[in-house]
Amino acid sequence: MKEKILLSYGSGGKYTHEFINNYILKFFSNDILNQLLDSAVIKIGKTKLAFTTDGYTIDPIFFPGGDIGKLSICGTINDLLCVGAKPLYISLSLIIEEGLDFDVVEKILFSIKTISEQEKVLVVTGDTKVVPKGSCDKIFITTAGLGVIENDLELNYEKIETEDVIIITGNIAEHGLAVLLSRGGYGFKYDIKSDCVSLKSMIECLLQEKFIKHLKFFRDPTRGGLASVLNEIVEKRKDIGIEIDENLIPIDKTVKSVCELLGFEPLYIANEGKMLIIVKKDVAEGILEILKSHPLGKNASIIGKVVSENKGRIVLKTIYGTKRIIDNPTAEELPRIC
Amino acid sequence: MKEKILLSYGSGGKYTHEFINNYILKFFSNDILNQLLDSAVIKIGKTKLAFTTDGYTIDPIFFPGGDIGKLSICGTINDLLCVGAKPLYISLSLIIEEGLDFDVVEKILFSIKTISEQEKVLVVTGDTKVVPKGSCDKIFITTAGLGVIENDLELNYEKIETEDVIIITGNIAEHGLAVLLSRGGYGFKYDIKSDCVSLKSMIECLLQEKFIKHLKFFRDPTRGGLASVLNEIVEKRKDIGIEIDENLIPIDKTVKSVCELLGFEPLYIANEGKMLIIVKKDVAEGILEILKSHPLGKNASIIGKVVSENKGRIVLKTIYGTKRIIDNPTAEELPRIC
Repeated sequence: MKEKILLSYGSGGKYTHEFINNYILKFFSNDILNQLLDSAVIKIGKTKLAFTTDGYTIDPIFFPGGDIGKLSICGTINDLLCVGAKPLYISLSLIIEEGLDFDVVEKILFSIKTISEQEKVLVVTGDTKVVPKGSCDKIFITTAGLGVIENDLELNYEKIETEDVIIITGNIAEHGLAVLLSRGGYGFKYDIKSDCVSLKSMIECLLQEKFIKHLKFFRDPTRGGLASVLNEIVEKRKDIGIEIDENLIPIDKTVKSVCELLGFEPLYIANEGKMLIIVKKDVAEGILEILKSHPLGKNASIIGKVVSENKGRIVLKTIYGTKRIIDNPTAEELPRIC
Repeated sequence: MKEKILLSYGSGGKYTHEFINNYILKFFSNDILNQLLDSAVIKIGKTKLAFTTDGYTIDPIFFPGGDIGKLSICGTINDLLCVGAKPLYISLSLIIEEGLDFDVVEKILFSIKTISEQEKVLVVTGDTKVVPKGSCDKIFITTAGLGVIENDLELNYEKIETEDVIIITGNIAEHGLAVLLSRGGYGFKYDIKSDCVSLKSMIECLLQEKFIKHLKFFRDPTRGGLASVLNEIVEKRKDIGIEIDENLIPIDKTVKSVCELLGFEPLYIANEGKMLIIVKKDVAEGILEILKSHPLGKNASIIGKVVSENKGRIVLKTIYGTKRIIDNPTAEELPRIC
């Protein structure tokens, strides 16, 4: 590791994984944390719970399609969904810069209120700190989430097998790109909106008895994008490989063009309203159909599969028919996108 | 409310309460949040849980008696204890400034590891964000805590009755003063250490069957000090008054002198290792004895009682025998002390 903390340690890519492996896991190793799922799955008495946290430092705090408040609640809900939990309770910790306009804070709180009411999660505890001007940039929000796992669903790396099918629930790369463009300075303007949304209503549709044992793994590809999540899988499961097909990855035309123009690889760009879902082959079409019938999943697509070849690697079949390895992102291309 | 966010909104005093009442409670009102306890008490199935969060922005991050890491874990443990819970799980969200020395982060993580192992709480989930240099000051930590309430204890404002006895478990005003002095610039040096500690082992001693129904209210007097917590009580319970006796409030001689020298009221200064405990009169001496037999409670003292006079007010009997009202702190005297 380097001697100074670099932006890339928080990017969701290679250095984040190094930091997690060399420090967080080394220092705090326990059976629950070591699972490295988006939510910790814990049992208290007979109750199975999901517990998660995320810090939000996004810049700008208002962006096309959302704001830091909406993002913080949707992100935490989606993390709870990743382990099959029903999201119930949220904690809300605000760190605010002295001098921030009060109506900015009010707007953000209103946004949190709206989304939490809509998704039926309760903000039950919180904390507010104000730091002197210059000690933080406007407002940081850290939410923790608590959910209950009421089914026999077990979603984790160990469940994944060869032949399993990989689904993405919609168009990729919208959140990161929308946030980047909203910062301006590119000399052009596109109407690209963040996909920031709670996936609760859509994911609930999948938790049917007939599917339970065939659902293997859920993960929302946020920081580091789809590439980062796929690499996390083969890092934890070095005995499998993953093949994805560029032609099958859903992406909006404008998003694709802007990525090409700016030299970004969409696979590395953050999403905030998509789920990567790995399921047994037999149920893939059934799952896809359910996803596509939901407004949030209309662009859902099977994008690849788990294979026994190329162990520990992500192989992309490009639109030109060639193949290339998709590595973990190494640099922080887009700081503060969540 | 003012049009800009002021430091005092995060001070734990009058403006914090205004902010909580006018915004947080107005926006997120629900039966659990409205209790305004240090931890939310929630029931999932038959399991009674405590859930809490706090953001830590302390400056300096290393101070006599602790660091931001130790503080974040102890603070969260103590908040869970406030509702009679057994602290079990912690979430750890780090926001780090780009360029911070790696060994600083390592030292803080080591400190978290040490205290969490000692107190048998597990860090089970976390998040790390790195923001560009200048976007935050070194490191902010937000922890959430999850505990289980295994007894029939109900600690809340409604339980408090006249004649109840008020106990503080040790010397006050040490944390805030230690942090302030460690910033330097006062032209003198005193050996004052923060009282930052987990109160788990001491509080556990009180959770005995014979005491359960006589324990009324626990609160660790952090931001805003003892005065702030006492004012919160009479704000929620306008039908009672509180009388405390300055002669009975335990305080270290040096701490007292330095407070006098700098013009600080020790009642307003933060503690990070003390508990304010309100109990039925009949058991007060028994409770005090148990506290005093524990290393963390050796200076525990009965400092006052709940009365039917002076409703909604805190009356201090001074060392001179006079009486004065202890108001809620209004200004932010000591920013970033936690």
